[in-house]
Amino acid sequence: MEELRLKYTLEQLSAYAKQYGFIYQGSEIYGGLANTWDYGPLGVHLKNNIKQLWWKKFVSQNKLNVGLDSSILLNPKTWEATGHLDGFKDPLMDCKECKTRYRADNLIADTSKGKVDADGWSYDKMYQYIIDNEIHCPHCGGFNFTEIREFNLMFKTQQGVTSESNNDIYLRPETAQGIFLNFKNIQRTSRKKVPFGIGQVGKSFRNEITPGNYIFRTREFEQMELEFFCVPGTELEWFKYWKEFSKQFLLTCGLKEENIQFHDHPKEKLSFYSNATTDILFAYPWGFDELWGIASRTDYDLSRHQEFSGENLEYLDPNTNESYLPYVIEPSLGVERLFLAILLDSLEEETLEDGSSRTLLRISKDLAPYQVNVLPLVKKYHAEKAEEVYDLLLENFTAFYDETGNIGRRYRRADAIGTPYCVTIDNQTEEDGTVTIRDRDSMEQIRLHINELTGYFKKLF
Amino acid sequence: MEELRLKYTLEQLSAYAKQYGFIYQGSEIYGGLANTWDYGPLGVHLKNNIKQLWWKKFVSQNKLNVGLDSSILLNPKTWEATGHLDGFKDPLMDCKECKTRYRADNLIADTSKGKVDADGWSYDKMYQYIIDNEIHCPHCGGFNFTEIREFNLMFKTQQGVTSESNNDIYLRPETAQGIFLNFKNIQRTSRKKVPFGIGQVGKSFRNEITPGNYIFRTREFEQMELEFFCVPGTELEWFKYWKEFSKQFLLTCGLKEENIQFHDHPKEKLSFYSNATTDILFAYPWGFDELWGIASRTDYDLSRHQEFSGENLEYLDPNTNESYLPYVIEPSLGVERLFLAILLDSLEEETLEDGSSRTLLRISKDLAPYQVNVLPLVKKYHAEKAEEVYDLLLENFTAFYDETGNIGRRYRRADAIGTPYCVTIDNQTEEDGTVTIRDRDSMEQIRLHINELTGYFKKLF
Repeated sequence: MEELRLKYTLEQLSAYAKQYGFIYQGSEIYGGLANTWDYGPLGVHLKNNIKQLWWKKFVSQNKLNVGLDSSILLNPKTWEATGHLDGFKDPLMDCKECKTRYRADNLIADTSKGKVDADGWSYDKMYQYIIDNEIHCPHCGGFNFTEIREFNLMFKTQQGVTSESNNDIYLRPETAQGIFLNFKNIQRTSRKKVPFGIGQVGKSFRNEITPGNYIFRTREFEQMELEFFCVPGTELEWFKYWKEFSKQFLLTCGLKEENIQFHDHPKEKLSFYSNATTDILFAYPWGFDELWGIASRTDYDLSRHQEFSGENLEYLDPNTNESYLPYVIEPSLGVERLFLAILLDSLEEETLEDGSSRTLLRISKDLAPYQVNVLPLVKKYHAEKAEEVYDLLLENFTAFYDETGNIGRRYRRADAIGTPYCVTIDNQTEEDGTVTIRDRDSMEQIRLHINELTGYFKKLF
Repeated sequence: MEELRLKYTLEQLSAYAKQYGFIYQGSEIYGGLANTWDYGPLGVHLKNNIKQLWWKKFVSQNKLNVGLDSSILLNPKTWEATGHLDGFKDPLMDCKECKTRYRADNLIADTSKGKVDADGWSYDKMYQYIIDNEIHCPHCGGFNFTEIREFNLMFKTQQGVTSESNNDIYLRPETAQGIFLNFKNIQRTSRKKVPFGIGQVGKSFRNEITPGNYIFRTREFEQMELEFFCVPGTELEWFKYWKEFSKQFLLTCGLKEENIQFHDHPKEKLSFYSNATTDILFAYPWGFDELWGIASRTDYDLSRHQEFSGENLEYLDPNTNESYLPYVIEPSLGVERLFLAILLDSLEEETLEDGSSRTLLRISKDLAPYQVNVLPLVKKYHAEKAEEVYDLLLENFTAFYDETGNIGRRYRRADAIGTPYCVTIDNQTEEDGTVTIRDRDSMEQIRLHINELTGYFKKLF
């Protein structure tokens, strides 16, 4: 069997994802809402499986860590303390001709094909560069931009508490701060000792000026974040530990090692509070790009919240009797970016021995949207028995029942959505109670008695 | 063993929930943010278990239904079509003296002790009633209110797409509409035939004027909603089916039958589009109140979206070759309300035979935050072996390791958070490889070999 690996473009992938019910455009019947995506019957299973696997490895079955589910709406003082209110801004400019909106730094980077990096430039310097180099609007060709303005990336809304107070609140731009606010409460009630971590999965919102690349950068997205608290001085060891642990997690998700790279940030590019930051990059269709950010954040967040809240957030170490603010390692991963990487890395167009080809989602068994397909060979004769088998398997597995079309076509459909096993009910089932089990990858079939199915699949999943 | 059932007040329950790490006040170190709550290490496990059980029963192991995960941010035309932009409003009035904000209808209901129901009254009529009956501000005693104004319950924010367009968007006040928008896409790609349902779990937001009763009514909350699409004319049968199915689900969650009531809405109180609505009420500390709303919504939502989007949302029935808009049954449940009901119904102060008492969370095994506690009898002698057992159990179960304090106190701690089983490692473990397994409810102990543990617990969970 010869394997031909096609690189899918985003367009091909999104057509596939829509056709099979993984991902639809958000609000599609109303012409969409820029850059929102909905996860259909298969997509929601895959998304849940990804989140549950992360939760298992990082929280529920991890001796070091505990979990949290904090609000999306936080007291706005939080964002004063972290600097998000002042500093979480992009340089925004509009083309006056066609009204297209740009991030000035991206416009410079894109038109220079990445040769000029405007990161850290003043707004004046960016503006001057655009004028001096006569950068035209990539959309309409005009050369008539507004000045560069600050644009805060937090979504603002108002909460009606009393008529007098300042009611402005923000949708969290990261789940991390909910963890820092709860550090003391969690440490106290869980009786965990430093080093320990707190993990959280949840939605965050960033009012990106230029979202894009399908589900890679969206305004509404879901994070899986760990804040790991450790003794100051030990943070670089733990940084190394979580780097390696995170990479192993990606391999467990089935990503191919050659498509993963570490990108260590050079010292001069680090945030002022960080003493080490690494991105795990994945080979997306447009090149290697950030999948997972891992940062050593020192005690920056806790110290800022301590200062702004007036609460003592120090940890009293029972071994040394010393009080200190723990240092923090933060591995922060986006569900949608991992979802995209998994689809890209699993989807193949395979050429078979007989020259025909099949679409195959060679996804890890633990993540497959459906674990088992149940198929009556001929609907008319075998549907009744097949429904019984379907009922039986539903008790323990995510099973899917498919009775329409010839059996070959149904196998292809199961392959295309990555279902690891097909169970087929045929004439022999009536005679001896056995069914065929077909393996997605090898396409080999074995026969087992119905009574053996549950035990057989329990070993596999 | 005599059982003494104490009814917990919300204050007692929230103190318990904070002490053990179920629920903390949101943004507590900043003095909170009105009516937000964060779910700690135990709370997040319980919340996840509730959501997973619903998902299993209503979606992944339910032959009738499929799942969806749609965006929180939808095209704002959605809310024009549903009437939320015009009609999702509360009558708001402020006390000019102390600035306390009220819902006028609630103010009338509360001060009349429920004897007067202002639901459906015009704003003028409410205002006149308050003046005529000299209703004073319950907070400061003043009698100096503003007029009644409309207050839309949707949180509004702005999305930065282009500088010209109207950028107002809303946080969804219900997950339901994401389902209706995707009805055609899902039906087409899943090849489901009517009758079938689409289930979704996710956050919704309502800018309530007077949230309260702890986690019962919050501005940010999580819904578990099913929209079940059926042939017009069959909707009342399906309404009955989902009423009963939903009640059974609550019993599976361990709620006591005597604490659950159906409240069928009388005909004259139904929404104009509904031909049947039932609330499942639970015995909260302030009386029976709504836990689950189940509504027969006819084709209202689909027909409105069809009208406003211009898309044909009809279903072509392959059996009759007729096209029609399916009718819809909607069982809609709030995660936090069920969470609260489960805690209230499970928490007991039990008097033991020897006259002492214990706090016991008699929660269903399927929902318990931790499945097993692992305890070395004496830390100094048995911790090493206990860690091995802990590692072993973590492979398949949500396990918790507790080595501090005397064994009796640790058992009480496990009882108080509802852990069904404690595994204790003692001197005999070294000799014959056996450990004790203590049952939470009966407090009876048996001995099993370590090698038997995984198999034993796999049968129980």
